[in-house]
Amino acid sequence: MKAYILNVGDEVLSGKVINTNASYLSMELESIGIDPYKHITVGDNEAMMNDAIDEFINSDAKVIITTGGLGPTHDDFTKELICRKFGYDLVLNQEAKDILDNYYKGDYPSCNLKQAYFPKEAIIIPNYNGTACGMILEAKEKIIIVLVGPPFELKPMVVNSVIPFLKSKLKNNILLKQYYLMGISESSMEENLLDYYPKYKNVNVAPYASIERIRVQITSISDYVDQFKEACEEFEDRLGNHIIGTDGKVIEEKVVDELKRLGYHISTAESCTGGLIASTIVNVSGSSCVFNESIVTYSNEAKNKYLGVSFETIKNVGVVSENVVTEMVNGLQKLTGSEVCIGVSGIAGPTGGTESKPVGLVHFAIKINNNIFTYKNIFRGSREVVRKRSVSFALYKLYMILKDIK
Amino acid sequence: MKAYILNVGDEVLSGKVINTNASYLSMELESIGIDPYKHITVGDNEAMMNDAIDEFINSDAKVIITTGGLGPTHDDFTKELICRKFGYDLVLNQEAKDILDNYYKGDYPSCNLKQAYFPKEAIIIPNYNGTACGMILEAKEKIIIVLVGPPFELKPMVVNSVIPFLKSKLKNNILLKQYYLMGISESSMEENLLDYYPKYKNVNVAPYASIERIRVQITSISDYVDQFKEACEEFEDRLGNHIIGTDGKVIEEKVVDELKRLGYHISTAESCTGGLIASTIVNVSGSSCVFNESIVTYSNEAKNKYLGVSFETIKNVGVVSENVVTEMVNGLQKLTGSEVCIGVSGIAGPTGGTESKPVGLVHFAIKINNNIFTYKNIFRGSREVVRKRSVSFALYKLYMILKDIK
Repeated sequence: MKAYILNVGDEVLSGKVINTNASYLSMELESIGIDPYKHITVGDNEAMMNDAIDEFINSDAKVIITTGGLGPTHDDFTKELICRKFGYDLVLNQEAKDILDNYYKGDYPSCNLKQAYFPKEAIIIPNYNGTACGMILEAKEKIIIVLVGPPFELKPMVVNSVIPFLKSKLKNNILLKQYYLMGISESSMEENLLDYYPKYKNVNVAPYASIERIRVQITSISDYVDQFKEACEEFEDRLGNHIIGTDGKVIEEKVVDELKRLGYHISTAESCTGGLIASTIVNVSGSSCVFNESIVTYSNEAKNKYLGVSFETIKNVGVVSENVVTEMVNGLQKLTGSEVCIGVSGIAGPTGGTESKPVGLVHFAIKINNNIFTYKNIFRGSREVVRKRSVSFALYKLYMILKDIK
Repeated sequence: MKAYILNVGDEVLSGKVINTNASYLSMELESIGIDPYKHITVGDNEAMMNDAIDEFINSDAKVIITTGGLGPTHDDFTKELICRKFGYDLVLNQEAKDILDNYYKGDYPSCNLKQAYFPKEAIIIPNYNGTACGMILEAKEKIIIVLVGPPFELKPMVVNSVIPFLKSKLKNNILLKQYYLMGISESSMEENLLDYYPKYKNVNVAPYASIERIRVQITSISDYVDQFKEACEEFEDRLGNHIIGTDGKVIEEKVVDELKRLGYHISTAESCTGGLIASTIVNVSGSSCVFNESIVTYSNEAKNKYLGVSFETIKNVGVVSENVVTEMVNGLQKLTGSEVCIGVSGIAGPTGGTESKPVGLVHFAIKINNNIFTYKNIFRGSREVVRKRSVSFALYKLYMILKDIK
């Protein structure tokens, strides 16, 4: 089964927004055995969108997914155009209206109301992060899937509605396993797998690296179930110590789960990460069971004032050092009483690096009850990337320790 | 003048590589007044590439830029296919061969030699970061520009060869202004502009909303300079109190700039945002001048322990209340001595909401020296989105106050 991806929007066409939706959708389609066939991006231009839909109708592709053009403004017309082309009327849809009402919890501009109009034949794709629902239409032996533009709205719609729907339309069963890896670079993983790839001709192994982690998707079809199983087993053998899970849970969820299991509380004392570890933990719903308080100690004075880090230590070995992060977690545990304490100090850049302490150098200490673990790493990338990688690294190391505590 | 962008390659089509070339090329084209007209991505598939070139030939676009398919292997055929279609022969080009020789500084696989073949009519685009040169062809009243795939090879080719060439072909100059807005929803802005859009027929106004802000791009060409100026002025009149700038600086940079100007320090006491405001400020390089310390007080006990928030107040009016955030900033200023203090308490969800205090309700207090400003807002979206919107809101409100302090 082949699929077109049609991205609609001046912002994407003009390059102001990088088209991450196309690659995201392609990866998701491939994961269930649907071939991405062509990506097309057009602006907010009815004639061009019309031509792209015609091209799809006349092709041998079965599916088209559109993104964008579902907003409340005058230049949003994706839904209207598709309904005209396929001969459907737009009527007020109660489900979509309820979502709109619930989103606004009261009055909203009248222009938003058009976002609640759909053909009665459509399957509504709820959008809980915005006002525009999407839809699935089956017409002229084709499947037309209409989605929003902003990725944070689009992704849950894909995971919760689009993929389950498309799966139900497929004949050959796809075999799929996803692994999430941390603590290893994509190129190191690739080196490890050089002689692995050629062994499994009917199995597709697709890695996808983000700042936080690598997702590796292993797929095949049911005809090759033995080969698929073998490929998964060998993958686990080779990279097991970096696999943090197969369920898609992000590392902060894994950490909160472990803390809950152990009845532990966590606090952080953060310098270069500036509160981002704490904030990442707080992003997990229900983290209040395990998280009470944290301190952002960016200046040397703050490290001394709240955590008792000695100015002598800072003077002797520098503020980005194993000694300082160790003093940070000791002080933090005294201050908060938390069983688990994390201390971080590093040079996020772009300035402040030296030959012996380059930009990207970050020291970590993790204290769990009376045990202290320390790490250092040099992260590459912009200030923001160094900080995000530091957060992922700290949570990954913590998780690897916690999961082995009985 | 309109341009197609045709990206060729299985890696891009399958989503393994995000198509940053399309947006990069579009931005570069727009900056010299050429309109990106359509992006197409196809795999390493001759028939599909052929169709895309035919579509371009039959369109009213003047320019096509292709990327990818210039490698030495059997599935690299972009140059060969284009020459076939436009009736050119490939002959050994000494300039391209010199670059190849120089890159390898010695022997190279014979398959690379095809990378030195070009039509004698072509302008060679040197590639100093790889082995594949690109080319510019003028044929059938069209301009065909053939580039490599890897961005770090492509970008210098664009800057040094493509843009200067295209500029020499242009008659008209582009007019462009960008506005960044906060504190207003896209639909409220749209309502405000309903009778504005039709007034300026030769001016294009394109809004794009992200979680943090709305960017509005106003463009025209030099023939309509008066209308363009008038459109910009009216836009500023209508929405001036939401425009945070035209320079693309994010709100945390604006806030840090203002704090530096005033010689103020900032601290935050964060509950539902969990350190994300502090972390967002720390993400600005050079924020150490204005930021020393902050506290994440997620539990009631922590709010009392660090900030002196009274349990009585919490019991009487609830922890998500104006009184509590006011006590938070008062306590925070005592603790830290910072001139600017922000306190936040809210219900990020998805659980914990009540009828009178729904999910998404967030209270804010900003204390600047002796003055306290309080706000509340109900944010929509997932836990993560509520938290991010709270951060943007707090920084936006703070910026609007700070910028008016003399």
